[in-house]
Amino acid sequence: MTRYVVEVINVGNELLDGRTVNTNLHWVCGRLSQMGYTVSRATVVRDRLKDITAALAEAIKRRPGWVFVSGGLGPTHDDKTLQAVAKALGKPLMLYEDVVEVLKQRYLMLAQQGVINDPTLTKERLKMARLPMGSKPLRNPAGAAPGILAEKNSVRVVCLPGVPRELMAIFDNEVAPILQKEARGRGFIVESLTVEGVVESKLAPLLVETMKRFPRVYLKSNPKGVEGGVVVVVDFIADKRHRAQLEDALKYFKQSLEKTGKWSR
Amino acid sequence: MTRYVVEVINVGNELLDGRTVNTNLHWVCGRLSQMGYTVSRATVVRDRLKDITAALAEAIKRRPGWVFVSGGLGPTHDDKTLQAVAKALGKPLMLYEDVVEVLKQRYLMLAQQGVINDPTLTKERLKMARLPMGSKPLRNPAGAAPGILAEKNSVRVVCLPGVPRELMAIFDNEVAPILQKEARGRGFIVESLTVEGVVESKLAPLLVETMKRFPRVYLKSNPKGVEGGVVVVVDFIADKRHRAQLEDALKYFKQSLEKTGKWSR
Repeated sequence: MTRYVVEVINVGNELLDGRTVNTNLHWVCGRLSQMGYTVSRATVVRDRLKDITAALAEAIKRRPGWVFVSGGLGPTHDDKTLQAVAKALGKPLMLYEDVVEVLKQRYLMLAQQGVINDPTLTKERLKMARLPMGSKPLRNPAGAAPGILAEKNSVRVVCLPGVPRELMAIFDNEVAPILQKEARGRGFIVESLTVEGVVESKLAPLLVETMKRFPRVYLKSNPKGVEGGVVVVVDFIADKRHRAQLEDALKYFKQSLEKTGKWSR
Repeated sequence: MTRYVVEVINVGNELLDGRTVNTNLHWVCGRLSQMGYTVSRATVVRDRLKDITAALAEAIKRRPGWVFVSGGLGPTHDDKTLQAVAKALGKPLMLYEDVVEVLKQRYLMLAQQGVINDPTLTKERLKMARLPMGSKPLRNPAGAAPGILAEKNSVRVVCLPGVPRELMAIFDNEVAPILQKEARGRGFIVESLTVEGVVESKLAPLLVETMKRFPRVYLKSNPKGVEGGVVVVVDFIADKRHRAQLEDALKYFKQSLEKTGKWSR
């Protein structure tokens, strides 16, 4: 079942030049996990048409339920995501009159507020209203460029702006309701245990043994920044439906530890 | 020329579940850019053997000069990177006696310091000494798991631990000297200009015009978190060798702006 599997594509040279930390990926993954989706892969590419198109086509081929693309929707020369989506989906770009109207109102408003001098819908501004045919524009309450929702071979493709404030607003207003409906009742629980006094290499057999006894619970250990790794945070992860088994696994793990180390929650 | 092109692969469920921000990517990209390398793509995958192997094989196929892999080198069940590298490179894993010796000394030291009770080289600890045949271990001054340097079809593959402190130490001590030698004289200059009072859509034609006049300079605009995007940071990026052209582009850009907006450096 790949319905609840998501891929993310982040577009932007700044993400690969060490200038910007990819907080959008972190935020989107957090939201999706909470709702019960699993992000299987994220790809970060530069502002190159060829690269964006290839990454998107490859993601669609792996048949996840959703692909989230961020960045490259704006008015400048390096904003190429819509062109890439059109290519990967095999659809032409077409001018959406309703989006033109939204842009017109927006620039008029900005002119009235004195933010800009000239509200003319220039070629660059109109670019943001040229969307892949058949896609649905997603209203941007925090900026000019709309997001889009499209589909190819049953894979839903969502494009969001790279500006975090705009990305978050469109995600929460326009996409989250669809996801929540689709994934109703799903979701993961994560319980973290901080273990002191046992190095990760020593903990390893107990991790495996616990997962063997409680097969619905996944354990992930994260050594923390202490020389020798004597502080290890162990995450216990399970589907909401398996809360009881997660509690049992935690109990078993803590009891087994009592002989060798300390733990705290 | 793909010699100075790098791909990055970050391994770890925590990076795709919204639990950890991918600061390793940011740090590695920063270091590589400073030295004159271009990171063309980054892929983030979960702790699944199949996914890590596929991502690495795909990256190698695109023939970059280097692939940097982070994460998955530790002693626990979810550390699968070395197995994936062995698969993608078509090499068996073999026990490196010199690495066994390093691990032995390390755990003896930790036992003497009272950090651990038992320095025995268990199966889990020995796992970190089983490296793909033909690869070179990279000394880890800050932890147990060594990095590795391998090669396939002239693509250099470097694996580093996911713990940032260990990743940085191995990169700077063992890999940076090789990169610096290879890329001597290369490197990019970035000059940032903060533009106020001109929205990005209005700035767009000037960005294109400047790049047309100064073809060695790449301009990248980043709207900042102000409603309407009236603060835009414009990065002027050029190879070190083209500093003069970058200065000319900056001058031209600022002069053109003087009629419409303000700028500050």
